[in-house]
Amino acid sequence: MIAPLPELADVEAAALRLDGVVRQTPLLESDALNELVGGRLLCKAECLQRTGSFKLRGAYNAISQLDGQPVVAFSSGNHAQGVAAAAKLLGVPATIVMPADAPAIKIANTRALGAEIRLYDREREVREDIGAEIAGRTGAALVKPYDDARIIAGQGTVGLEAAAQLRTVGTTVDAALLPCGGGGLIAGCGIALAAAFPEAAIVAVEPQGFDDTARSLAAGERLANATGAGSFCDALLAPMPGELTFALNRRRLAGGLAVSDAEVARAMALAFSHLKVVVEPGGAVALAAVLSGRFAAHGRTVLVVLSGGNVDPALFARVLQA
Amino acid sequence: MIAPLPELADVEAAALRLDGVVRQTPLLESDALNELVGGRLLCKAECLQRTGSFKLRGAYNAISQLDGQPVVAFSSGNHAQGVAAAAKLLGVPATIVMPADAPAIKIANTRALGAEIRLYDREREVREDIGAEIAGRTGAALVKPYDDARIIAGQGTVGLEAAAQLRTVGTTVDAALLPCGGGGLIAGCGIALAAAFPEAAIVAVEPQGFDDTARSLAAGERLANATGAGSFCDALLAPMPGELTFALNRRRLAGGLAVSDAEVARAMALAFSHLKVVVEPGGAVALAAVLSGRFAAHGRTVLVVLSGGNVDPALFARVLQA
Repeated sequence: MIAPLPELADVEAAALRLDGVVRQTPLLESDALNELVGGRLLCKAECLQRTGSFKLRGAYNAISQLDGQPVVAFSSGNHAQGVAAAAKLLGVPATIVMPADAPAIKIANTRALGAEIRLYDREREVREDIGAEIAGRTGAALVKPYDDARIIAGQGTVGLEAAAQLRTVGTTVDAALLPCGGGGLIAGCGIALAAAFPEAAIVAVEPQGFDDTARSLAAGERLANATGAGSFCDALLAPMPGELTFALNRRRLAGGLAVSDAEVARAMALAFSHLKVVVEPGGAVALAAVLSGRFAAHGRTVLVVLSGGNVDPALFARVLQA
Repeated sequence: MIAPLPELADVEAAALRLDGVVRQTPLLESDALNELVGGRLLCKAECLQRTGSFKLRGAYNAISQLDGQPVVAFSSGNHAQGVAAAAKLLGVPATIVMPADAPAIKIANTRALGAEIRLYDREREVREDIGAEIAGRTGAALVKPYDDARIIAGQGTVGLEAAAQLRTVGTTVDAALLPCGGGGLIAGCGIALAAAFPEAAIVAVEPQGFDDTARSLAAGERLANATGAGSFCDALLAPMPGELTFALNRRRLAGGLAVSDAEVARAMALAFSHLKVVVEPGGAVALAAVLSGRFAAHGRTVLVVLSGGNVDPALFARVLQA
């Protein structure tokens, strides 16, 4: 028995809570990229969101319903910044449990937002345990990264906003590709996008070695990733689909695709050259799926979500010089 | 005796011609940058414009009034791409005269837009002469980079659009800082911004060694740059203010500031980290003026135009690693 699943009304209610807090991020388009794939790509640039990713949406939607309770969260970086920023905006203390090997920019930005940071060793400690221990000791509410109806509804506002922008320009889409880690972003957006574009294929894109959602969708049950795989998509390394996110995603998703680090790096470089935005590895997987041809965009109009832009300058420089 | 100066009605007419052709670029804001300067920065991201800079606006406004005549233009890169893209959209042939040492990305992108390219040697040839020769021989109309009322009116739509966006969010500005080469962007935007925000100080920002507009404004007459200076702001190396642009700018501008290449590089890196956009050197000078403290933004709301994002990956990588 799992908690009630969020519905369209929950995403719409989240959008009202987020009004004036998050930015309406643009739908970017490049004539050169369109020519490259022979179709039309509309890129929802959540890398331009406050905190540099979509994560503020879910965090604020959840924390604003807690009546001032302190919060604790575990995250490799983007959820950390989202929770820290939301807590700061709402005036509540936040403790963030982060892996010591998270990108320096994400740790620094989270600290700059006023959160207390607890670093842990990814090999020897379990972040869920640390988060639960802090919650038990301090009375803080645990703000989960994805498997929570309020988080999912908040992330879904990306899809609600994109659908409204597409309606404004009179465009429908044949498909929507979204990055997928634990599945919160695509689960929430799936609610909004399926309502707006019932015919569109909604596709999860994951890093190779972390394609738990793709395999789980194919198998009809939640499967974990094998341990030991590596990817530079640090934002998308969740071990397996969430209960709530998988229950939503198995209902609405057309399937999942996996992309290589090299394909992701090329997508980041093409986003630099043609879209002029900074996209982090995990934020670029959906674009990589289209630009690599793993998803055939020829003759189609495709919504692509660029979910974040928090990448260390040194890594970005290496990607540009490859 | 110079040609009639463009007025607000000309900028508004340009906006109608550009409707559906150019994108409405977002006003970006970063909590971190606001804290850094102790004020509020609203950054008009024309680097996200089609062709990667604002130049499409003026070019399309001018060429769409030529009734199908072929065009020729000289440009180090952004005007080249703007003219090439506008000519392609309007179905007219374009020849672009470019310095052989222009950034490779700008030459490649201009060629990809279908224009014929004539490269020249910056030391031994005069681009104006080459452009005039081609115009005389082929009957093509010369599309000047800045000293033309239609070009100025088109570039002014950046300011018109920003003013409308600021009104939508209920914000006024104390100052507006814009990059300045020949002065077309700030001359056009000055028309729109002075009408919308009569109290705002409109300030031209130039690279050190190319502060002809700042010195001309102070002197009350057009002064040229000394030869021999260098700057990596390739988009802003015009030799002296235009006749029309200076006539407009001396009427409305509060003055001019110059920034160093190091200050520009830091602004590009901070735009990468906090705004998640790619800004080229010439596009980042206004942001550099604020972030360096040369313009005091403390306690003020400042509109900053990021005018372009066409920068070679290798240069951008060096800026990130500095």
